[in-house]
Amino acid sequence: MDSLDELIPFILEIDKEKNIFRQTHLTDHGRRENDAEHAWHMAVMTLLLCDYSNEPIDVGRTVALCLCHDLVEIYAGDTYAYDDAGKKTQNEREEKAEEKLFQLLPPEKRDYFHGLYLEFEENITPESKFAHTMDNFQPLLLNHSNGGNDWKEHGVSYNKVMGRQGRSIEGSKIIFNKIKEIMDSHALSGELIDDRNSNGEID
Amino acid sequence: MDSLDELIPFILEIDKEKNIFRQTHLTDHGRRENDAEHAWHMAVMTLLLCDYSNEPIDVGRTVALCLCHDLVEIYAGDTYAYDDAGKKTQNEREEKAEEKLFQLLPPEKRDYFHGLYLEFEENITPESKFAHTMDNFQPLLLNHSNGGNDWKEHGVSYNKVMGRQGRSIEGSKIIFNKIKEIMDSHALSGELIDDRNSNGEID
Repeated sequence: MDSLDELIPFILEIDKEKNIFRQTHLTDHGRRENDAEHAWHMAVMTLLLCDYSNEPIDVGRTVALCLCHDLVEIYAGDTYAYDDAGKKTQNEREEKAEEKLFQLLPPEKRDYFHGLYLEFEENITPESKFAHTMDNFQPLLLNHSNGGNDWKEHGVSYNKVMGRQGRSIEGSKIIFNKIKEIMDSHALSGELIDDRNSNGEID
Repeated sequence: MDSLDELIPFILEIDKEKNIFRQTHLTDHGRRENDAEHAWHMAVMTLLLCDYSNEPIDVGRTVALCLCHDLVEIYAGDTYAYDDAGKKTQNEREEKAEEKLFQLLPPEKRDYFHGLYLEFEENITPESKFAHTMDNFQPLLLNHSNGGNDWKEHGVSYNKVMGRQGRSIEGSKIIFNKIKEIMDSHALSGELIDDRNSNGEID
């Protein structure tokens, strides 16, 4: 077993995730949300919504993926899902961050936390697919509760959002249907730029 | 399976936990921490420190306890661990909150989330004991990283803090020893009022 003293630097370092702010706003038109709050919310949502997974999942593992999926943003910063310029450098920034962060841990724990990060990024296991669905559904629900204001503020379009949210179907068809219903309502009311074709379908 | 629409009000309601602020400050003398961040941090610490539990624990269940232990504070507010006046009304406030919050859920999910809350409060299972140890160790580490300033600000004494932190030994002897080592250092340097007897023992 590792010495407790070897683990404390990592515990204190990840405290910084509470200062990485996202583009999503809290309900009731609140302040912007940070990564730690987002991860907590996704994890509780997993406890609540796990029955909606397409495939059977290990709920504990899925919760762990949710809790740790954004840790590298402590160094790499948050990249808004619809920020094309930011997306170009995101991989490089996150790879450097990954190396720096997990090196704080002794080998066994390093492998465990790095493994969580890689499993989420690779997005192959049923658990990681469901965690991605939570990663998409959580900010969408907050944004919806605020009248779609985050989309309006960034001038994003339906197809752009669907490019990301569409993959939620891989974790849960039922949740994806709800996501699509919410997006459709905001395309109608104008918070999402409606670039669907004339049949109302995605181009 | 419940309808997804029946679960969304609870998801949005618990967003309010991000606005319940505690007395603990973030590292680097940052702002005060909120309950959602605290719960997230405790949950990640459980993944990291579970080997230190006195008894074998179901890590997934322990993480769930950590994530949900403060949900009732959405209505009841946070009660500082060393606030004697607040402690007198805490039970009544939390019981009312418990009823209000879990009623948002359909029966099966209500029982699950209420069960997590009760298990933590009863503090009998190995999982709940370890979750309590995390609930104590997490703010202590942040406070220690800030030179014990939270204790100094509230003028609390060694024995008062030990009254709460002492129970950490029920979840993990090894973590309790570290807690005591940290407390001893702050009694020496003066951030904790030293009311131990002349042998340096607790009265």
